[in-house]
Amino acid sequence: MKKSRLDRLFKPEAIAIVGASASPEKAGYMALKLLDTYQGRIYPVNPNEKTILGHKVYTSLKAIGEAVDLVILAIPATACPALLREAASINAGAALIMGGGFAESGEDGRLIQEEIKNICKTTGIRLLGPNTGGFADPINKLVASFSVSFAKIPPGSIAIISQSGGISLILACMLENDGFGISLTAGLGNCVDIDGADMIDYLADDDATKVIMLYMEGLSDGRRLYEAVRRATLKKPLVALTIGRSDIGEFAKSHTGNLVGSYALKAAALKQAGAVVVETSNDLVDAACAFSLIRLRPAANPGIGMLVGQAGAGLLMFDQLKEAGVNIPALSKSSVAKIARYLPPMHFISNPVDVGRRTQEEFANILRVMVEDKSLSAILAYGLYEPTALDPIKLFRELDFKLSKPVIYGTAGESTDMRSTCAQLAAMNVAPFKSPERSARAMQALVEDAKNQYRIGRYGKQKSKSVTIGKLPPGALDEAQGKRILKKIKIPVPRSIICHNRSEAKKAYAKLRKPVTVKILSAAILHKTEVGGVHLNIRDRKQFKAALKSIDKIPCPGQRAYLVEEMAGPGLDLIVGGLRDAVFGPTVLLGMGGTMAEALKDVSMRLAPLQPADAEEMIAELKASVLFDGWRGSPAINRQAVIDALLAVSDLLISNDQIQELDINPLRANNKGVLALDALIVKSEK
Amino acid sequence: MKKSRLDRLFKPEAIAIVGASASPEKAGYMALKLLDTYQGRIYPVNPNEKTILGHKVYTSLKAIGEAVDLVILAIPATACPALLREAASINAGAALIMGGGFAESGEDGRLIQEEIKNICKTTGIRLLGPNTGGFADPINKLVASFSVSFAKIPPGSIAIISQSGGISLILACMLENDGFGISLTAGLGNCVDIDGADMIDYLADDDATKVIMLYMEGLSDGRRLYEAVRRATLKKPLVALTIGRSDIGEFAKSHTGNLVGSYALKAAALKQAGAVVVETSNDLVDAACAFSLIRLRPAANPGIGMLVGQAGAGLLMFDQLKEAGVNIPALSKSSVAKIARYLPPMHFISNPVDVGRRTQEEFANILRVMVEDKSLSAILAYGLYEPTALDPIKLFRELDFKLSKPVIYGTAGESTDMRSTCAQLAAMNVAPFKSPERSARAMQALVEDAKNQYRIGRYGKQKSKSVTIGKLPPGALDEAQGKRILKKIKIPVPRSIICHNRSEAKKAYAKLRKPVTVKILSAAILHKTEVGGVHLNIRDRKQFKAALKSIDKIPCPGQRAYLVEEMAGPGLDLIVGGLRDAVFGPTVLLGMGGTMAEALKDVSMRLAPLQPADAEEMIAELKASVLFDGWRGSPAINRQAVIDALLAVSDLLISNDQIQELDINPLRANNKGVLALDALIVKSEK
Repeated sequence: MKKSRLDRLFKPEAIAIVGASASPEKAGYMALKLLDTYQGRIYPVNPNEKTILGHKVYTSLKAIGEAVDLVILAIPATACPALLREAASINAGAALIMGGGFAESGEDGRLIQEEIKNICKTTGIRLLGPNTGGFADPINKLVASFSVSFAKIPPGSIAIISQSGGISLILACMLENDGFGISLTAGLGNCVDIDGADMIDYLADDDATKVIMLYMEGLSDGRRLYEAVRRATLKKPLVALTIGRSDIGEFAKSHTGNLVGSYALKAAALKQAGAVVVETSNDLVDAACAFSLIRLRPAANPGIGMLVGQAGAGLLMFDQLKEAGVNIPALSKSSVAKIARYLPPMHFISNPVDVGRRTQEEFANILRVMVEDKSLSAILAYGLYEPTALDPIKLFRELDFKLSKPVIYGTAGESTDMRSTCAQLAAMNVAPFKSPERSARAMQALVEDAKNQYRIGRYGKQKSKSVTIGKLPPGALDEAQGKRILKKIKIPVPRSIICHNRSEAKKAYAKLRKPVTVKILSAAILHKTEVGGVHLNIRDRKQFKAALKSIDKIPCPGQRAYLVEEMAGPGLDLIVGGLRDAVFGPTVLLGMGGTMAEALKDVSMRLAPLQPADAEEMIAELKASVLFDGWRGSPAINRQAVIDALLAVSDLLISNDQIQELDINPLRANNKGVLALDALIVKSEK
Repeated sequence: MKKSRLDRLFKPEAIAIVGASASPEKAGYMALKLLDTYQGRIYPVNPNEKTILGHKVYTSLKAIGEAVDLVILAIPATACPALLREAASINAGAALIMGGGFAESGEDGRLIQEEIKNICKTTGIRLLGPNTGGFADPINKLVASFSVSFAKIPPGSIAIISQSGGISLILACMLENDGFGISLTAGLGNCVDIDGADMIDYLADDDATKVIMLYMEGLSDGRRLYEAVRRATLKKPLVALTIGRSDIGEFAKSHTGNLVGSYALKAAALKQAGAVVVETSNDLVDAACAFSLIRLRPAANPGIGMLVGQAGAGLLMFDQLKEAGVNIPALSKSSVAKIARYLPPMHFISNPVDVGRRTQEEFANILRVMVEDKSLSAILAYGLYEPTALDPIKLFRELDFKLSKPVIYGTAGESTDMRSTCAQLAAMNVAPFKSPERSARAMQALVEDAKNQYRIGRYGKQKSKSVTIGKLPPGALDEAQGKRILKKIKIPVPRSIICHNRSEAKKAYAKLRKPVTVKILSAAILHKTEVGGVHLNIRDRKQFKAALKSIDKIPCPGQRAYLVEEMAGPGLDLIVGGLRDAVFGPTVLLGMGGTMAEALKDVSMRLAPLQPADAEEMIAELKASVLFDGWRGSPAINRQAVIDALLAVSDLLISNDQIQELDINPLRANNKGVLALDALIVKSEK
């Protein structure tokens, strides 16, 4: 059945609540009570009651006899399949199961979960949960939950999608504490039917929502989520938080029954799709608050102007933004000259502009100059709350701020002043923050979003070139076969000759440029170096013979040969890989080669198909990327050649599903180009 | 003159205020007005006024005729030297200059600053500032500042030392916003006389102060600060924030006239001295709040128990703590069995303990079991604020918390509930935080402090072994001379022979184990490899001759020779260095060798004298420290040999001030031990 959209779940005209109870300690009572403010029709269902909380109670869903959009099941897990079927039979659009006792709790629960999954599939009813806290829409005053805290959340323009019901509530509270409200918050729980991707698609089209907050733990279909994020971020900003930077697998699985998966890959995919990925709930909240007021235009590297009343705060913000690679450009000469009018003579003027204790008028004048500077996309300002000297409300009111550039304003003051001040600033679309670093980090989020938009906008829809490599030979592939495929996709390999015996080897040696490398060629040996199967830097016949002799001694089942190859020149060793990931599908990896890089896990990943800008970002993301610029006198690496290799691997994976995995380790890169010194290709199992 | 302590500055019985003004817009008016709540005697000084704000005004300091402890100079920079001299002449104990116009503003200011520095030195008067916001002691209601915001800070047990006046106020506001108060906040400004070390010593002995917050930008005498931090942290926790992770030098210098210096060295020195070093003002505030209530006992690796009502919050905290290397040990079997009584059957019990929605009694019972578990030093608990289900105030009141272990409690709820809830928790010595990660990070700070205390406590006073190396030869030292010194301090070097001509070289070749290395030996050539002066892996006479020939071709002034050396076995290449730093004095460095490590700046630093535990921490701090444990089958590195080498360099620097710098690059380390493959020693200029 074709799945319907989620309006009947989140904007229902009638709600039935199965398991409605008259006992205040029961979830079925609380859930009904929390519907007090709901404007639609309510049908409690309980065969043993007549009225609860003034509502007429029905004996069954069928007994209602009128159209129902949403059915809330406040009943034990074991009773859920039958009632979910009944909900579908009366043509309800959606159901919500808040309770636990499903896949997260063991084998019995897993079987029940399978059953309700199947019911959703065959009937088309949409299901939120199970094992979630429900949802709340403060704008329409609809609380579908048994947690009273949901009722206190103020309306606003931030939507929360959370795999964990607890986190959906925690984030809502944190937003409220900072003076911001929400349009919708939903806990997804075990994601039997409705998952993050469904929610993102729904909220991307929801006019009340200006920014989407996403908290995900594990994923089953990462590719679907990726595509949804990519669609959504064309319309509005999305900030994402996920877990798994350290090894927390077992604990995580016991929560929502999902595996955590690779943090690095989740974060890379979300970023590639246009999300701003943060590492803490605080950063998630701060970024969302800023985005609910401000979104920068797409820009390759937006320039940020900094204006501070306290130099110390400026230093903390500047240090952080520079570390994050945010562009704080020098001000134009004319801006500096204009600003100088409002500052004492000899005052050092640069970006950040440190104004010291100035009158409000001076501060406003300087801010105006910066807003008009063409090299700046947004302004990060900081001023202690000292209304007798500098009152930010008056400041921005008088500036008629609507006409100018986005501003984040950091401030500090007594708590009683802060709440109203921040609320008034937000009402003028100035994003307020209560510490230097929080202000800076929020600005960093805005900048990342602007860069994401630019990168995605530059290439439009993701394309990939189709590459034909023909049918792969049967059995495992050896290095020479791997390199033949690399040649087809235009990744350079060293000149080499396959030799089946010593006399062929002798001829090959004569033919190739010295020095050469001699390797054992066998699909059965994966780690050639470990078995003594690789002999480098061979410059004379004596060494060459010794190498062949040594290779002959290696025990090796099946066919074997020598691969004689011209030695590559010096360069930077990289690892380029492609993998068909179980969660995200075709994925491309770039890593630094060598023991040190491996120990530090210095890699960057992206989903295929890759755009050139993605490949550029992969290089920039490597911790040791500075080595690409040339190091201690060596010339800079040919970046375009590395980018081309990454794109070629991406295209290969997309157009050939016979390939499960591809490893080029190392890919030698230098100023001239790249050369694949080894190649391992693993075929898909079909 | 012997310097007096700071009591007359911070606990004055009488204050004179020079430049007291009747004009409300002037600093001299504001400063006087802010003394309203001060309990001691006040003497405004202004030759042109009779009374201001009800105070009798004096024509000069001398005209007061009574003892004055503190003189506030609210006058232009140019007038300060004369008045400071006058203050000293009437035997005032201390002075405060808030205004700017000194070293931070150019050459004229620098000269005035030199002059006042000199006055302090010769007269012994203590000076806070110039170029600072002053100080506030909310306990005694003394505000010595012109900033009205200082008057609103509530009293408490946290002291703030800040180089920047603005930051001292910002931090105080942030603490107030979180419901905490302060014992003293002081901005140091240009630190002409009173510096961070003086303040730390003063506050270490201040009974009202339970924790010291330190914000420093640049330092002139890092060693003094280091010693003061070391003394203070024996008595109470100290949390430090400094700047310079990125290149912000020029902007920083324009602030307080100090250079920023190496962030890595500042952070390492502070940590070594026992401080908890954080990276943002938010972390500084959070850690200080926790420390004002809790300090863990010294422990090598304290175990933390985690108890969460919301699994999602548990995951965020767990992920962060594991990433930070905090020890979250498994619970004892008996604890697990006891906890199982309060949870549904089949509930997964581990550490973190995820209890889900439980009654308050169940939560309390489980918490009690964890508090009694001997493997745990402290508990990190998290529960949404849902007073009908779980009221943290009742929870801890009923637990009679004073008897048990330290607890950090993270929570989330509506802002109106949060303030009183957090205040009541703090009153019971439970440290409250409003996000999972903030709770976790505060716990991380407590753990770091416990580890610091343990490390420092284990060795008591820092000692160093005296090493006699005799007088160094005149002129620059060559590699062989460097290695001779290494041998004296028991750092192993390869067996080698210095050869002045080919025939000596021939004999040396015969004598040494093959393969050998041949190097040019000349104090004039610093980079031997770059000029072709290093020939490795020589296994036969032909190669040996070729190497000598090639070395002979290198242009080289003065004396030269060949250094023939036995080749070292394989291993991990490290860099070990010693330097007499201008700010911190003798300093020891450990780094990973190789291009990649250099690009990633993978180094760790400590001040000498080093304790074995410091050296252990240096290894652990390297990003690639996992390579010490053996990598892909290679045996683990002999850590003790690396530690011994670091300690030897430390001892050498401490007992021989003829050495300015020492570089061992590389120090080859493997399972057997270490071998210094090169040595460069630079003598001090005297």
